Amino acid sequence: MKIAILGGTGNIGKGFALRWGQKHEIIIGSREQDKAKAVASEYNEILEKYGHKTSITGTDNKTAAEKAEIIVVAIRYNQLAPVMDLIRPVIENKIVISVVVPMERNMCYISPGSSYPRAPIESKDFNTEYFCFSMPELGSAAQEIFTMIPDNTELVAAFHTVPARKLANLDMELDYDIGVCGNSMHAKEIVFGLVNDISNMRPLDIGPLETAGMIESLTPLLINVAARNEMKDVSLKFI
Amino acid sequence: MKIAILGGTGNIGKGFALRWGQKHEIIIGSREQDKAKAVASEYNEILEKYGHKTSITGTDNKTAAEKAEIIVVAIRYNQLAPVMDLIRPVIENKIVISVVVPMERNMCYISPGSSYPRAPIESKDFNTEYFCFSMPELGSAAQEIFTMIPDNTELVAAFHTVPARKLANLDMELDYDIGVCGNSMHAKEIVFGLVNDISNMRPLDIGPLETAGMIESLTPLLINVAARNEMKDVSLKFI
Repeated sequence: MKIAILGGTGNIGKGFALRWGQKHEIIIGSREQDKAKAVASEYNEILEKYGHKTSITGTDNKTAAEKAEIIVVAIRYNQLAPVMDLIRPVIENKIVISVVVPMERNMCYISPGSSYPRAPIESKDFNTEYFCFSMPELGSAAQEIFTMIPDNTELVAAFHTVPARKLANLDMELDYDIGVCGNSMHAKEIVFGLVNDISNMRPLDIGPLETAGMIESLTPLLINVAARNEMKDVSLKFI
Repeated sequence: MKIAILGGTGNIGKGFALRWGQKHEIIIGSREQDKAKAVASEYNEILEKYGHKTSITGTDNKTAAEKAEIIVVAIRYNQLAPVMDLIRPVIENKIVISVVVPMERNMCYISPGSSYPRAPIESKDFNTEYFCFSMPELGSAAQEIFTMIPDNTELVAAFHTVPARKLANLDMELDYDIGVCGNSMHAKEIVFGLVNDISNMRPLDIGPLETAGMIESLTPLLINVAARNEMKDVSLKFI
């Protein structure tokens, strides 16, 4: 299949390109076309070292979306509206996969002892940072995207729990579960296939798009787990 | 320690009583005192069969909270306000553990094919049910509880991902991770100990109370995973 990865020069884009590039035609999309071309060459070189003949290409986000059958939206939440505006005219009858997570970094005070401060704390007293899911009014980034795509475009939310660094390391087996949300079983089954294309990953159906907020909120949760429990590149398994 | 389990006659209360009753003094709380006494006897009998001498007792929610050092709030979300009103006068300087999850069950339509219906669907077309985290205005049930307890009462959110049936089956090893949220390290460390008291469970610090929404939303997520992927009594591990 032809897969566009919008925001494909970012952390997670590299891993998708290297994993799927072995089997599919990958088009890296970016706001900066030159950067997209440069990383496409870099990804081709890596795959060649692993013995794969590939033809990953790089271009701007709109051209990438236009050329592909499947469009992976792997951009920051604050870039969502302009990028969707840009690609809307060229994604009819295609499948959009959202990896987008709205989250925020905050600071707060955690008391070491049982004297439990409840009064407003001065910022100088903050002693810990944490990440939280920043729920959009519609419940999730995916539900916002749903309002930004043509009627006949299918939408799936998935891959929010993939550690980017491990995904981009082809020597790593990724024995993780990937939650998949969406209202089209046709599109979800195609995404199940893309999950299965990545070493040991297992796709799990979570339900309709309305469940995407629970999946998106796993990303800040995993960041907290890693930071507070001396773990690295954390993902999860449902057992 | 003396541990009150409010709503202790429910599904999850049985497991807590059986697991912690081997080491701690358990007081089952319920709106119906007679029911609490009956299940306490039942739990004692089960533990005796496993060779444990126990003295689990049952009483009303308020008396249970008054007698204990640690109060586990294992009630339904819609019972939260009246129960917290009831126990507020007797929980100063104690530790409250919230297992409460605000969630809702909904119905929707999932299209089997790529014709992707976006128009409002008639209820007769609904073909699937799903559960969602129903985020309270303050972000989580735990943050609501924080507004309902005295200033010197410590609050921790934990145990939202424990499958009740497996917890209540003492033959089962529970090789699961338990996320723990709260603003008092003192209280969290006590809860880490309670997690470690249960076979193979591992406590993970998630962060302050502000992160509780991400943990509470794991419960409806796990229900969806189980229902849609032919799995049973699902929990999770961070790896």
